[in-house]
Amino acid sequence: MMTPRYDFASDNTAPAAPEAMAAIVEANAGFAAGYGTDHVTAQAADLVRGLLDVDAEVRFVASGTAANALSTAALARPFEAVLAHEHAHICTDETGAPGFFGQGVGLIRLPGASGRIEPAALDAALAQPDVSYRQPAAALSLTNATEYGTVYSADELQRLIAPAKERGCGVHLDGARIANAAAAGFELKRVAALGVDLFVLGGAKAGMPPTEALVILDPALARRIDPRLKQAGQLPSKGRFYAAPFVGMLQGGAMLRHAAHANAMAARLAKAMPFKVLHPVEANTVFVEMDEPTLERLHAAGWFVHRFLDGSVRFVCSWATTAEAVDELAQTLQRLA
Amino acid sequence: MMTPRYDFASDNTAPAAPEAMAAIVEANAGFAAGYGTDHVTAQAADLVRGLLDVDAEVRFVASGTAANALSTAALARPFEAVLAHEHAHICTDETGAPGFFGQGVGLIRLPGASGRIEPAALDAALAQPDVSYRQPAAALSLTNATEYGTVYSADELQRLIAPAKERGCGVHLDGARIANAAAAGFELKRVAALGVDLFVLGGAKAGMPPTEALVILDPALARRIDPRLKQAGQLPSKGRFYAAPFVGMLQGGAMLRHAAHANAMAARLAKAMPFKVLHPVEANTVFVEMDEPTLERLHAAGWFVHRFLDGSVRFVCSWATTAEAVDELAQTLQRLA
Amino acid sequence: MMTPRYDFASDNTAPAAPEAMAAIVEANAGFAAGYGTDHVTAQAADLVRGLLDVDAEVRFVASGTAANALSTAALARPFEAVLAHEHAHICTDETGAPGFFGQGVGLIRLPGASGRIEPAALDAALAQPDVSYRQPAAALSLTNATEYGTVYSADELQRLIAPAKERGCGVHLDGARIANAAAAGFELKRVAALGVDLFVLGGAKAGMPPTEALVILDPALARRIDPRLKQAGQLPSKGRFYAAPFVGMLQGGAMLRHAAHANAMAARLAKAMPFKVLHPVEANTVFVEMDEPTLERLHAAGWFVHRFLDGSVRFVCSWATTAEAVDELAQTLQRLA
Amino acid sequence: MMTPRYDFASDNTAPAAPEAMAAIVEANAGFAAGYGTDHVTAQAADLVRGLLDVDAEVRFVASGTAANALSTAALARPFEAVLAHEHAHICTDETGAPGFFGQGVGLIRLPGASGRIEPAALDAALAQPDVSYRQPAAALSLTNATEYGTVYSADELQRLIAPAKERGCGVHLDGARIANAAAAGFELKRVAALGVDLFVLGGAKAGMPPTEALVILDPALARRIDPRLKQAGQLPSKGRFYAAPFVGMLQGGAMLRHAAHANAMAARLAKAMPFKVLHPVEANTVFVEMDEPTLERLHAAGWFVHRFLDGSVRFVCSWATTAEAVDELAQTLQRLA
Repeated sequence: MMTPRYDFASDNTAPAAPEAMAAIVEANAGFAAGYGTDHVTAQAADLVRGLLDVDAEVRFVASGTAANALSTAALARPFEAVLAHEHAHICTDETGAPGFFGQGVGLIRLPGASGRIEPAALDAALAQPDVSYRQPAAALSLTNATEYGTVYSADELQRLIAPAKERGCGVHLDGARIANAAAAGFELKRVAALGVDLFVLGGAKAGMPPTEALVILDPALARRIDPRLKQAGQLPSKGRFYAAPFVGMLQGGAMLRHAAHANAMAARLAKAMPFKVLHPVEANTVFVEMDEPTLERLHAAGWFVHRFLDGSVRFVCSWATTAEAVDELAQTLQRLA
Repeated sequence: MMTPRYDFASDNTAPAAPEAMAAIVEANAGFAAGYGTDHVTAQAADLVRGLLDVDAEVRFVASGTAANALSTAALARPFEAVLAHEHAHICTDETGAPGFFGQGVGLIRLPGASGRIEPAALDAALAQPDVSYRQPAAALSLTNATEYGTVYSADELQRLIAPAKERGCGVHLDGARIANAAAAGFELKRVAALGVDLFVLGGAKAGMPPTEALVILDPALARRIDPRLKQAGQLPSKGRFYAAPFVGMLQGGAMLRHAAHANAMAARLAKAMPFKVLHPVEANTVFVEMDEPTLERLHAAGWFVHRFLDGSVRFVCSWATTAEAVDELAQTLQRLA
Repeated sequence: MMTPRYDFASDNTAPAAPEAMAAIVEANAGFAAGYGTDHVTAQAADLVRGLLDVDAEVRFVASGTAANALSTAALARPFEAVLAHEHAHICTDETGAPGFFGQGVGLIRLPGASGRIEPAALDAALAQPDVSYRQPAAALSLTNATEYGTVYSADELQRLIAPAKERGCGVHLDGARIANAAAAGFELKRVAALGVDLFVLGGAKAGMPPTEALVILDPALARRIDPRLKQAGQLPSKGRFYAAPFVGMLQGGAMLRHAAHANAMAARLAKAMPFKVLHPVEANTVFVEMDEPTLERLHAAGWFVHRFLDGSVRFVCSWATTAEAVDELAQTLQRLA
Repeated sequence: MMTPRYDFASDNTAPAAPEAMAAIVEANAGFAAGYGTDHVTAQAADLVRGLLDVDAEVRFVASGTAANALSTAALARPFEAVLAHEHAHICTDETGAPGFFGQGVGLIRLPGASGRIEPAALDAALAQPDVSYRQPAAALSLTNATEYGTVYSADELQRLIAPAKERGCGVHLDGARIANAAAAGFELKRVAALGVDLFVLGGAKAGMPPTEALVILDPALARRIDPRLKQAGQLPSKGRFYAAPFVGMLQGGAMLRHAAHANAMAARLAKAMPFKVLHPVEANTVFVEMDEPTLERLHAAGWFVHRFLDGSVRFVCSWATTAEAVDELAQTLQRLA
């Protein structure tokens, strides 16, 4: 039996980009202070601040799930809830991590086409009166690019954030694919002005080994952030290994360059796609209508991809996706269609 | 001002060993399945099983703190407690992680010279009657090598584990420095027969980038281990980066070889040490009596080391410690003594 | 402004029944051992065991919310989930208590008409494969009488419990209104044989001051139940005050007698009801279709009732509801219809 | 075998005082709104505010353990710690409830003679630098009267609270025996000015059925207090049963009158005590030196009392303790001495 190809299964199946790997090898020289007090971490944090044009605390952690769940736990207490798209990663793919890190913090699931929260649904949720028997909303969690590969503009995010802020909610931005959003036109330097309090700037899906940058835009939330992370197993003793990939990927602009390539590969795939595309292809994913027998034949042909929450089948491109692989996949798909 | 030297500050300040780095670079080729289902993870798990001569589930996680705290949470419920040496890492250096991951699980702190639990103290704790107003013991947590650089023999561990098991307690072994213990004579292949249920086989302190192997020796505890880890932010999407270092360090025996070197460097330092050595030097650390002005002069001379919980000053050697560095440090110490 | 009448707002708005009050006054004589070791608690536990014809541990706690949440936390771990009707009290009215007591334990919400879980929906949920990114089902939570005042027969419960047990799930029965279910024909003595593991036998809604009996039918779950309850603030020092009402209500059969009266009052109200009744009236509640202006006029007429989750308006009868009050309310409703 | 006498075992073994019982019976008339929105709760809250001369939110809960643990959880986050006397109830008698309600919040145990925190020890703990691997202090928990029956004056509390407040710590006061402290001269009307943020005004030990008043002196902590309590199982549906005892005990001054009696009985017992009294008798408890054979003979003589944390044997008086019982016990003790 042939080994299945994971090229389009997820952006997590790609190897790390050469710039990230080179930076790790370089950072590995000599002894260095622990727990994020080393020079590599300092340099990476500066690069992140530069990218966003902010003066914020930055920490590098191992897990996006943990970074997201620590963020929502910082913004909402156990007897409160977080507003999020019903198909957001924190709602559907993180095994209840928000509740685990937040001791039962609730999730209020909002509808919206193609992964974008419907503003009217948000307004309605925010208008709910506080009652003792229900967890009231205390935070809004956003994802950009969304789970369905669409991209919020800064103005669209503003439309969602403004009413949430008015009601006293904090704001978390899950940026697991923020590089793809940025490559699609989202202005990273507007994140702070939008009112985001905690921003998880994704590394792993952008072509790095497992690492995410937690950007703490609300200074009050930075207080005692190190014991908080340490307790949760997210303050690495050898911090330079989490920071170095960001150095490699940010100092020469590789992160955005690679994301633009991933987006272009998704566009190329969408163009050649013989199945109905179900969501706008704005970043690095293509979702299509495909029945189960066809999916099985695709798997049998060696291409591993997932059926998604909304019933569609998802193809993900990454920095490592080649035009040849896209074309090869497209030919297979055309044969199966 | 000169950059302080971290050579002896901790085994976490050392770079990763070349075998570990080479394995990461090699593992980075091509696409791979996510969440620990890749071929590198499978190979690393086999190597760990071979090292211990066990048939156990093995997972690779980012954080020793999390691995320890998930272990104690698996063995003791919130209204129960874990028995541990009062200076064990889980008691003093992990910011209350056992309580966070275990929703308030208690710690019963036991005394004992040089980091070893005093058997009589353990017996007394186990003899405590169950009462409703106190968290009763449900697990025993052991550390080898101990926080003070001493090494339990398998027989000594047996002496502690037997009465705990008799009272129905599960057993966790924190092996952050198990490589050093093994290099000092501890028989790794006896871990399973000793009755250990969850074993954290340390990578980071042994010369790897941040990674630890969680070895689940009690099969009942392996049930649903993946959702458990995922929820806690310890099931890495790109699992090969946590597994590869173990491949590099285990397949040619580098882990134990490097640990033996670290132990030898500690012995060399102890031999040349002009200050009173306070704990037996059995692994890779040397603890000495040193007053505060002397410590400050040592820091001023550029050598960064920590004063420890028992008031002593700790020097740690690693795979990367050179004989030249030991001698250079020893000369400085002799000047200060 | 007149004081609103709470006669039909909830069964929690009724006073305690005379049998319960008399038992409290009687139990208050003299000194008694604490933490549930007193003679009144022993007597009440015997009466509960007799009522159910079981040999089980019984504890008396202050809060149904806590009793339910401790039950689900005992049956499902943080990375697992509890199956329940989407409108069950634990899902909608307890402020996320299952997640709080269970450190993020998940809820899988099942549909079903009039508060009864649809068997096919349960089967489908149980058939879901275990995956790492989702909390798998570990327990089934049932409610009898349901939130919509319908009553499961023992056979109907059996139909739901059997497939859950087959998949290894534990079973919790929320019996806040079990007295009403029993008065409607549900056989209490079948609870144990059905496979229920933890049963919350409601006191407050049955006409007692705040107290609930936690019946632990699975002996394994009784281990260390006292420290568990104590830690959660549910092991009362003066236990006799929680136990005495059950003595008063069970030794002469008052509990079931009062419940039968409440059910009869609901039937009387349903019969006279000029609005469309939306759920079968099998216990002590009547749900009707009523538009908002009419509800407001009803409130203005002095009768306080709630609009419920499904949009209907709920009327609740209790042991204290008089036929005169039903008739008076019915006349008002007829005027408004 | 004779039934043991619990007169001196605890203040929890006493029955409820007649004023408390009469108020419950009276409050039981008619229907009333639920969840603490009833008239009895409003009246009781007013009486508590009058007693303390404060404008604060007041809630009535079932459990002192829960009230204390919810307080510390409100003041310290999971990665922070609470400073308390090492023998405080929250440290030794509540089965780790602070960690359960606070998801692992730490306890920093402080020494001090006879239950009073040693000011120098507090200062030293507050002077500890924040480090990532330790839970830093975020709150100070005080108990008055203390576990050893001594009473802090308001000035003594001020001495402890001032440096804690200076370091940003919140303050919790466990007043399980505050009535006894007040009867011994502690000025209740100074609680607010002292800087206490959350005050648990004890009902159960003061002669009420299980109920405690949670007084929220920091208005910021009152936000969403009802969902917080509901989630934790401490917002009773039938709130009047928790409030009524405070009405009965406060409106005519019975609470303080009964506490003065309890204190007087302790003084009478201390005077007649043939064993060495080990702590100043300032409230309602007497601690003595007694060897194990003597304690066993006392138990055999029918008097049930506890050996305490410090090795002493404790005798507790309550509102229900009679002079005759004291004299009868004293005679037994004189025979055993």
